[in-house]
Parts: sequence; C-alpha cells; structure tokens
Amino acid sequence: MEESCKRDAGEAFKLSNHVKFEICIVCKGPSAETHRSQILDMFKGNVGDAVHNLIQRLQQSGLFVEQEDGLNMETFIKIGAPEEVIGRTAEKVQLRKVTYLGLDVIFDWHQRDAFTRQPFENSLFSWTERYQCLQHLIQTVRSDSDIKLPSLQGEAKDIEVKSGEALVPVLKSAGVIVDIFPLHDEEMRKELLRNWALKWKDVTSQPIDAIYTYFGAKVAIYFAFLGMYTQWLMFPAILAIFFSFINLGKFEPVVPLIFSFLVVVWAVLLLQFWKRKNAAILTRWDIIIPNGESCEMEFFNHVGKQTLSGEGTQKDRLPWTEVTKSQKQVIQKLEWLEQLKTFRNIVIVVTGILCFQLPFELTYVHLNEVLPYNILKYALTGLYLSAIRYFTKIGGKIAVKLTKTEHYSNMEAESDSLIYKVFGIYFMQSYIGLFYHALLHRDFGILRQFLLERLVVSEVMNLVMENLVPYLSYRWAKHKALRWEKEQTKLSKGSMKPQASRTEKEYLKPSYASSIGNNILEDGLFDDFLELALQFGMVTMFACSFPLVFAFIAVINLIEIRSDSLKLLAIRRRPIPHIASSIGAWLNIFQYIGVVAICTNCALLVCLYDQAGRWKIEPGLAAILIVEHLLLLAKFGFSCFVPEEPAWVKAKRMKRAQVQDYCSLQLLRSLDAKRKTA
Amino acid sequence: MEESCKRDAGEAFKLSNHVKFEICIVCKGPSAETHRSQILDMFKGNVGDAVHNLIQRLQQSGLFVEQEDGLNMETFIKIGAPEEVIGRTAEKVQLRKVTYLGLDVIFDWHQRDAFTRQPFENSLFSWTERYQCLQHLIQTVRSDSDIKLPSLQGEAKDIEVKSGEALVPVLKSAGVIVDIFPLHDEEMRKELLRNWALKWKDVTSQPIDAIYTYFGAKVAIYFAFLGMYTQWLMFPAILAIFFSFINLGKFEPVVPLIFSFLVVVWAVLLLQFWKRKNAAILTRWDIIIPNGESCEMEFFNHVGKQTLSGEGTQKDRLPWTEVTKSQKQVIQKLEWLEQLKTFRNIVIVVTGILCFQLPFELTYVHLNEVLPYNILKYALTGLYLSAIRYFTKIGGKIAVKLTKTEHYSNMEAESDSLIYKVFGIYFMQSYIGLFYHALLHRDFGILRQFLLERLVVSEVMNLVMENLVPYLSYRWAKHKALRWEKEQTKLSKGSMKPQASRTEKEYLKPSYASSIGNNILEDGLFDDFLELALQFGMVTMFACSFPLVFAFIAVINLIEIRSDSLKLLAIRRRPIPHIASSIGAWLNIFQYIGVVAICTNCALLVCLYDQAGRWKIEPGLAAILIVEHLLLLAKFGFSCFVPEEPAWVKAKRMKRAQVQDYCSLQLLRSLDAKRKTA
Repeated sequence: MEESCKRDAGEAFKLSNHVKFEICIVCKGPSAETHRSQILDMFKGNVGDAVHNLIQRLQQSGLFVEQEDGLNMETFIKIGAPEEVIGRTAEKVQLRKVTYLGLDVIFDWHQRDAFTRQPFENSLFSWTERYQCLQHLIQTVRSDSDIKLPSLQGEAKDIEVKSGEALVPVLKSAGVIVDIFPLHDEEMRKELLRNWALKWKDVTSQPIDAIYTYFGAKVAIYFAFLGMYTQWLMFPAILAIFFSFINLGKFEPVVPLIFSFLVVVWAVLLLQFWKRKNAAILTRWDIIIPNGESCEMEFFNHVGKQTLSGEGTQKDRLPWTEVTKSQKQVIQKLEWLEQLKTFRNIVIVVTGILCFQLPFELTYVHLNEVLPYNILKYALTGLYLSAIRYFTKIGGKIAVKLTKTEHYSNMEAESDSLIYKVFGIYFMQSYIGLFYHALLHRDFGILRQFLLERLVVSEVMNLVMENLVPYLSYRWAKHKALRWEKEQTKLSKGSMKPQASRTEKEYLKPSYASSIGNNILEDGLFDDFLELALQFGMVTMFACSFPLVFAFIAVINLIEIRSDSLKLLAIRRRPIPHIASSIGAWLNIFQYIGVVAICTNCALLVCLYDQAGRWKIEPGLAAILIVEHLLLLAKFGFSCFVPEEPAWVKAKRMKRAQVQDYCSLQLLRSLDAKRKTA
Repeated sequence: MEESCKRDAGEAFKLSNHVKFEICIVCKGPSAETHRSQILDMFKGNVGDAVHNLIQRLQQSGLFVEQEDGLNMETFIKIGAPEEVIGRTAEKVQLRKVTYLGLDVIFDWHQRDAFTRQPFENSLFSWTERYQCLQHLIQTVRSDSDIKLPSLQGEAKDIEVKSGEALVPVLKSAGVIVDIFPLHDEEMRKELLRNWALKWKDVTSQPIDAIYTYFGAKVAIYFAFLGMYTQWLMFPAILAIFFSFINLGKFEPVVPLIFSFLVVVWAVLLLQFWKRKNAAILTRWDIIIPNGESCEMEFFNHVGKQTLSGEGTQKDRLPWTEVTKSQKQVIQKLEWLEQLKTFRNIVIVVTGILCFQLPFELTYVHLNEVLPYNILKYALTGLYLSAIRYFTKIGGKIAVKLTKTEHYSNMEAESDSLIYKVFGIYFMQSYIGLFYHALLHRDFGILRQFLLERLVVSEVMNLVMENLVPYLSYRWAKHKALRWEKEQTKLSKGSMKPQASRTEKEYLKPSYASSIGNNILEDGLFDDFLELALQFGMVTMFACSFPLVFAFIAVINLIEIRSDSLKLLAIRRRPIPHIASSIGAWLNIFQYIGVVAICTNCALLVCLYDQAGRWKIEPGLAAILIVEHLLLLAKFGFSCFVPEEPAWVKAKRMKRAQVQDYCSLQLLRSLDAKRKTA
C-alpha cells in the first residue's frame, strides 16, 4: 500500500534506515460519505498535482520525505531533516543558541562548532528547536508552478496556487492539508514507557532529562514539579498518619493548630525549594533565562517602531543605545495605557466572579442543604453540574476575549494572564461550597466528608476525562476507519485485511490540548496544572480540619504521575514542544494559595476551638479586621500594579542586548577567521 | 609659606593653572605639646627624607603634587592626576566600564575611545572611579631607597622602609601619615551651594545630576530619594490640613479610617514609584546594574578557590563554564552553612531586643507614667537618655561583631546586614513608648502630644548633632591651631598674622562618618537614612491618630534637604565617593514599615472607635489572630531565608560572565585592529 517517493538513489537508500521522521502533514482524502472513485479521480487531477508538487518541493529543500496512504483516503507525508537543513533554517529564523564560550548568540551554520551540543543527545539542536525550524521550512515551501485546485469543501470558487507562493498555507485554506502534527519517535517512546510510565519501583524518580529531550522544556518542567511536589507530600502525609493513629492525650486539642502551622511552613518551603530546583534544572539543560529583554522586544517593535528607530542614531553619545526624551514619553504613555487596560480587565473579572458566580454557587450549596429529599438533591446536583460546565465555558470565552484586548509581548505573558483569570473562576467554583460548610456550619464532620467526596470525585473524573475518554475516542475513530476501508475494499477488490499504519494510529489520537482558550494556552498542561493547584489548595487551605487527606493526596499523585505520562506517551499525540523557563503563572498561584491558606486555617481553628460559638466578634472589631486584611491585599495589589522598572529603561536595555548580539557574532567570526589563517 | 615642589618645568607650569587637586595626604607634624624646634630637627632628618621621598615617587608615577605646610606643623601633600595616569591605573585595578557598544568590559587605555564619557562632565572617569584609582596609586607607590624612621609615637623600635616596599602603609603605621582625604573642588562646591543648598525658591527641585558628578552615586541616590519623599509628602499633608480644618459633619468619625487607608496606599505607591525612579536615574547615569555576578565573585573566590578551578577545564563539553558535581556539593554545603550562621545571628539580635531592650524601655515608660512629681520625671528622662546612649553603643558593637562573623561577598551586602540589625534596636527604642501609650492608654490626646514631642525633639536634636556640633568642633579645632601657631611664631619671629589655608580648613572639618560601625557602614548616610526611616515609621504607623503630623513633617523635610546639603558642602569634609545602585537595605526597611503600619493603624482604629473598651477580644480569638499574623510573618521570613537560586548556579553564571568579559575585550581589540589596517 505504501508508495515510496523518488529520491536521489544512493544517498536516499543509505539514509532511509536511520532517518527519523519527525513531523507529519496530513492531506485530506474524502470523508466517509463521498464515493471513493470520485475522490480518486480528483486525486489524479489537480489535488494530486498539488500534493505531488508539495512533496517534490519539500524534497528539493533538502528534507527526507515519505508518503504513506491511510485507510481513510488520507495521505500522510512524513518529514525528517538532516542537521544541515535544520541549521540553515535556524540561521533564517535567527535562533539564539549558547556557544561553548558561554555567550548566547544567533545561530550561524558556519560557526556550528562553536555552539554547544545538546546535553543528553549528541545533536546540535534540541527537539524544540528542530520542530520550530521544520515548521518554518514547511510553512515557507514555495510552489514552482501554477496549480488550480477544485474546492474540496463544496465552495464555489476554485483556489489557485501561483508559482512562488507558499504552498502549505494555501493548501490548508483549500482543505487539502488537514493537519500537521509532530510524530512520535518509536524507539524513545518505548524507552520512556519502560523507564517512566510503566516503572513501578522507585515510584517518585523520573527520567527528567529524557523527558526534556523528548518533550521539550515545558512538559519536563511540569513533571519535575509534579515529582518534587509528590515527594514533598510524603512529609505531611507521614505526619498526618502519625497524628491520626497515635493519641497524644492532653495534647490532642493542640494537634490541629500545630499541624496547620507545619503545613503552611511546608508550603512556603516547598515553593522556595522548587525555585532553587528550577534554577538548577535550567542550568543543567543549558537554558539561559533571558533577562526579559527578548520578551519585551516584540512589545517595542509593536508599539514604538517609529519612535525607537532613526532619531537615536543622530546623537553623538551612545549612538546605538540611546533613547531620546520624546521616545521616553511615548513609551511611558503606552506603558500606562496597557497597565490601565489590565487593571480594567481585572476589575471586570473580579466583579463577574463576585456578582454572578458567587451568588449562583451559594444558591446551589444552600439549596443542597435545605432540600428535604435525597432525590431532589441528586436532581439539583445534576442540574448544577451541567450548568457549571456551561458557565465555565462562557467564563473561559470571556477571559480569552479580555486577554486578547491586552497587548502582550510574548505568548508566555499572554497565557499567564489568561491563566490567572480562568483560575479565579475555578477557585470560586471549587472552594466556595467548602467555605460555606466550614464557616457557617462549623461542623467538621460534614466538612471532612465533603473534602473527601470532592477529592475522590475530582480525581476519578480527571482519570476518566484525561485517559479513558481520549482512549475510547481513539478506538472509535480507528474502528470507524477500519470499517470504512473494509467496505471500500469489498466494493473494489474483495480480499486483503486492512491495517492502520503507525502514522495513521497517531493521527487518530486526540491532540494534547487544553480545555479552554486553546489558541492562547498552547497545550494541555493548563488542565494538568489546574488540577494540581486545586488539589494543593484543597489540602493546604483546609489542612487543620482533615490531616489525613495528605496521605490520600500523596497516593493519588503517585498515580497521577503514571497516568499523565501514559497519556502523553500512549493516549495522545506527541505534544508540540515549547520552550519554558519556569512554571510561570502557576508559581504565583501556588504562592497566593499559601497566603490564603493562612487565613482559612485560622478561621477554621476559630471554628474548631469555639464550637459553641461563644467567642464573639463584635461588628466593629470584625470591620477593622476585614479592613486590615483588605489593606494587606491592597498592598500586594498595588505592588503588582506598578511595574518596578519603567518601560523605556527596558527599551534601552533591549537595544543594548541587540548590540551585544551583534558584537558576539562579530567576535565569533573574527575568532574563526583567525583560526583558519593560523 | 608655601613651598612648591620641583616639577618638569614647562609642562608643570602650563598645567598648574587648571590642575585639580583631588586628594590630600596629611603628614603629621608635632602635637601641640611637643616643642617645635625639636620636631623641626626631626623633619630635617629621617622623617623629612621619607616625606620627600614620597613626594618624589608620587611625581615620578605621573601625578601632580603640591606640598603645603599647615599651621599646626602638618604637611599637606595635595595630589591631582592627568587622565592618562588614572586610565593606566584603571587597567591595573581591572575597572569595568561601559563602552559605546553598550558592553560592560574591563577598561583598556588603548581602547579608550570605545568607552563612554561621563554623562555630565566631559571626562572619561567619574569621580568615584578617579578616587578609587588615586587611592590605589597612592597605596602602591614604592620607595626607591632604604629609609629609617624614628618612631613619632614614642615606640621603642624604629621603623624602616626598605627599597621597593610600599611607602604609604609603612608611613601610616609609623604615624607619619595621619590622614588621607578627598579634597573639595572649590568651583563646583560653590556652584552647588548656589544651586542647591542655598537655593530658596522651587524648594523641592535638586540638581541631582550635579550631585552625582560631585559626590558619587550613593549620596546622589540618597538625595533623590529624600527629594521624592518630600514631594510626595505634599499629598497627605494637604489632605491632612483639609481634614483638620474642615468639618465633615456626620462623616467626621470615618475620617481616621479613610485617612489611614489612604496613607497605607500612599506609602506603597511611593516605594513602587521610587523603584521606577531609581531605575530611570541609573539609566541616565549609565550605571549598569550587575546581575549579582560581580558581587558573588568574591564569595566564590573566597570559599571555593580550589574547588572551582582546575577540574572543569578537563571536560570536553562547555570546558570554560562547567561546574562539576563535587564542586556543586562543596558550594552547596558552604551556602547552607552561611545561611545558618545568618539565621543564628538574627535569633540572637531578636532575642536580645525582646529580652533586654523591651523590658528596659517599658520600665522607663511605665515609671514615667506613674511617678508623682514632675521633677522626678525629668530626672528619670535624663537618666534614661544617658542610658540609651550607652546601650545603643553596646548594641551597635554587638551588631558589628555578629555581622563580622558572617561572610559577605561585598561591602554592600555586609553593611545591609548591619543596617537591619541596628535598625531593629532603633525601631524598638523609638516606637515602644508610643505603642504603650496608644494601646494601653487608648488616649489619643496623650499619643498626639507624645508624637509631636518626639518629632520636635528628634528633629532639633538631629539639626544640632548633625550641623551645630560638627561646626563648633571645627571652629574649636581651627581656633586651637591658630592659637598654637600664634604662640609659635611669637616665640620664633614675632609678627605675621597666621591664616589657615583652604586645605587645612578642610582637614580640620570632621569627616562624614556614621555613628555606628564606621568600618562597615562606610559613610554618614546611615544616620541620615535612619532619621528618615524613623520619621517615615512615625507618620505612617500612627497616621490615623494624628493626620496633621504630615504637614509638619513635610516642612521639616524641606529644611532637612537644605541642612543635609549644607552639611556635605560646608560643614564636613568631602565624603569618600561610593558606587551604589539603590538605597539598598533601606528600601526593604521602608517596605517593612509599610506592612507594620497596616497592623498598627488597625489597632489604633480599634482603640479609637472603642474608647469605652466594650469590644471584647476573647483570649481564644486573640490567640488565633496572633497565630495568623505570626504565620504571615513566618511566610515572609522563610521566603527570605531560602535563597531562590542555588549558589552553584550563580557560580556557573559568574564563570560565564568572566568569559564574556574576556570575549568582549578580544572583540574590542580586533575591531580596533581592523580600523587601523583599513
């Protein structure tokens, strides 16, 4: 069934054995409804030409290409690349890489020996870099002849590819190319399955470096955090078991106090040590954290192009790095406008949550309390669950829209902003019921029951939604494809049992995407982190009421590591690799939960020690206490709102960095020239 | 009376008109008790030889030298330097400077055109850099012959300077050189007096750039902060006047609440905007903030010399920037030992303050309350004042000793550590009485009276101690010198009215030194900042009880700017210039005061609205509230205790920076070579 493409004979044969195909373009065949022969005609015609042209052009730009026909009339174009092609593309996209000298400069193929190789494989480029370059190559491959395409999706107008035009975008808009996705590397995938997902002894250790090599920094940092968090969970878990099963006699009443104190300190230390570990990991991976310059670059390119260029060069002093007064003013004005926009959006989100979500959630919890019959309660819960699903979706959409109005210099900052907003919604949704029970009922029995219920339900739900649902949908898609193929072959020839190729199987798997704002959040890590953060909040904020929950959580997270790794390796497509230097917004969210945990634990302790409700909070005193906490909040808020460094100072630093780049490259070249003459 | 030294005739004459003498070495003549002729003999002998040799050697190393005899038998050797001499020395001390390309590299005289000139004067080196180089030059000038010195201070053994030995340290230890201090530049001093200290219109504007040029970054940043703080004080001052003189009718009771809220927000915004201004100022002055690398350098040089060198170069990958595993472990161990030592010292200081200072202060306040007769109270206050003077001195000495046990990478970190400790002592001393009155008496009348008393007393005390006492001591020293000279001249010749030269006048002025730990704190800014911080605490922490104090403080600070500037320009010697990138520890202290202010204002509000004392704080509730606040404190504490970045990561970054240095210099040279050949 496979139709190998023509290649330069000798070299191709030699290479084909160890060519790694890393990316796959899926060209649409017919949907199941269309008749096959009709489509085949079409393929023989213009569409076939276009695909053929694409394959030829890809080969001409130096890539390894292999065509494979799928069961469902899709054509899979598997693409691999020799190092030199990647290197040349890296030059074009101005990829920054670390040299042996420790400098961080734009890559130059001629100087390739000066750049460090990857720490855990002997290639020059990491998977993230290779993917980036391959994508660039594919997106910019140009047609060398005019091709007319009939519209596959029943549109009236035909689409035409002109000679010299980029092929892929046109074919994509014409519906010929349905998907482009990264391919698994079977060898490394199996290795990881063995050493990570299916390794059942030494349960907390993970091959983080191998994960980094295979999935890129973002995913690897998530698993490093998950692993460290799980390891650290052992301390409070053991302590909780100790406190629960050993009676301390007259010290028993103090246990919740001590435990909540220890948990708060534990949370702070966990996050601090995580920052250290994060720094250590980045150093091991040779990822240099940019000082914000490269991130800000785009912002200034966007807002101050005309103001930043030109003028500065006319002055005598510091001609390259000067920012003039008028430029300063323009940048400063823009900076404050951006800040105000952000502030407005925060106000909108907070108002929305407090005025719409809070009453809704409280109504549900209250109704659930007062309804007389169990059957009514179940009906209510069912109604509620479907309602919040819908509301969360709307909330997510609003959050995405608000985030789009702000201008961000890079994807990371933008997704961070969205994460904060969406987390606000989830936070309210997850905890308001618990707060209600904790503070208004003062009944620790009910609170514990609720906590456990929530945790079990959410964990089971997660396992199902993350693994079972995608797996079943994959099985269903495969089954459908096989059945269709069977029918078709019966019609035409009769025999030959159809089998899905490995590429097709991967294509049928769902991709690793987030549940909300996928175009901003990039990948499914949002859901994984959200789960972790909500869980972290659950255990720290209600620590004193139910210590044993830590032991429960520790076990759950051990399973989580396995289920998440299995998800990435077997159930979903290989995720698109992203660069990252930290867990980003989530670190702040975890820290914020740590502060909130202090207040909730204190409130819980009041409830616990004062079950008769005899301690009185006079309205005046309560008001002052609230004012105090609001002030503490305001202090943090204002500190965040006013950036510590004026944007124009950043602009100047950025210019300096550009110059430094230029210099570094010059230096490398001159050193190289010297070496050659010597 | 002046005896000009021999110089290379033509050049010397040409230059002497605009030579700026920037530093002065004072060689000891006799004390007033010794007979003059006896000393003169001595001078003619070996001591004279030594001084003469020193002057010659200084001239030979290219410096401009002028000798001047003082009234009191001191010899003043005034020293200036041409740019080239400074430049050559800068090479030797490996001074880092910014180039036009924006790179920050070690200075190289041959490449001098590549380095940026100073922003506000046309010289290549700033005053701070010139002073540093001059000091280095003076300290390393070597003798070219053997000189025997009789001990001036009555020691048994004679001191000998061998040929090739550094002259200045030996002469210093022999008591021949009494002092080395920077000289005022009369022209600029007068300019500054006119435009700054004695300028009475547009009272808050200061010529910050001129101050930077004349005094260096550290002093200039202090005045920039003082100026901004004073400007910002106008807002609450106006508000306070508004609230005090306009009756708001039924809203009157809410005024303290609103005012304290506004003040807390004001304090946060002030500090945030200060950070912005700080960044802007540094950019204007072309000071590049080092990313901690250069600061950490010394630490690693100190603790890990053998562990960091050698091994790394044998590996293939990243040979220059690698840190091996064993090195990592060594560094990590040392890092944690240092952290523990710091922690121990903090515990000692806090324990000392709580166990010794707190009871003492409370006893005084309480006794002052209960004593029956006014006369007894005055006696007690007198006793108390002399006692705290003594205690503060002891506390300061202990703090210095503790700080010396810790190891710091640079002077700035060390002085910051001392500042925190000493501030703790002063904080307790200044506020405990106020807290006592506020919380235990709940009497706002008394509190206001105390606040005002404290403020007036402390401001008057400061004015006297900072300006009047040094001025009087200077007058006294000058008077003594003149009288002595008169006596001497009467003895020998008879006529000729003696007059102190400008250099001598400067020598007689007291130096700009701090009241505590002068060898660590470097200069008198400690006292100025301490005053500011205590004042800031006074107004923010008790804001709601006495708004009008802001107006009072605003006026005081306008005077403070003048008095401080006058102090630097006219009453003290020119301070030794220091480099600085921020107000350092004081920023954290101001922020800490901001947090404390939230709590105290809330407590005050409780007192205010509940003057009958009917709001009850049950012991249980109070305990929980205290626990909450302790937890918040612990959170901050722990966050500070665990450094965010492992020391070995810093070590690696530092190595990288060194390499970058090397590269940058190489680049500059090769660019230069190209320019010459072209």
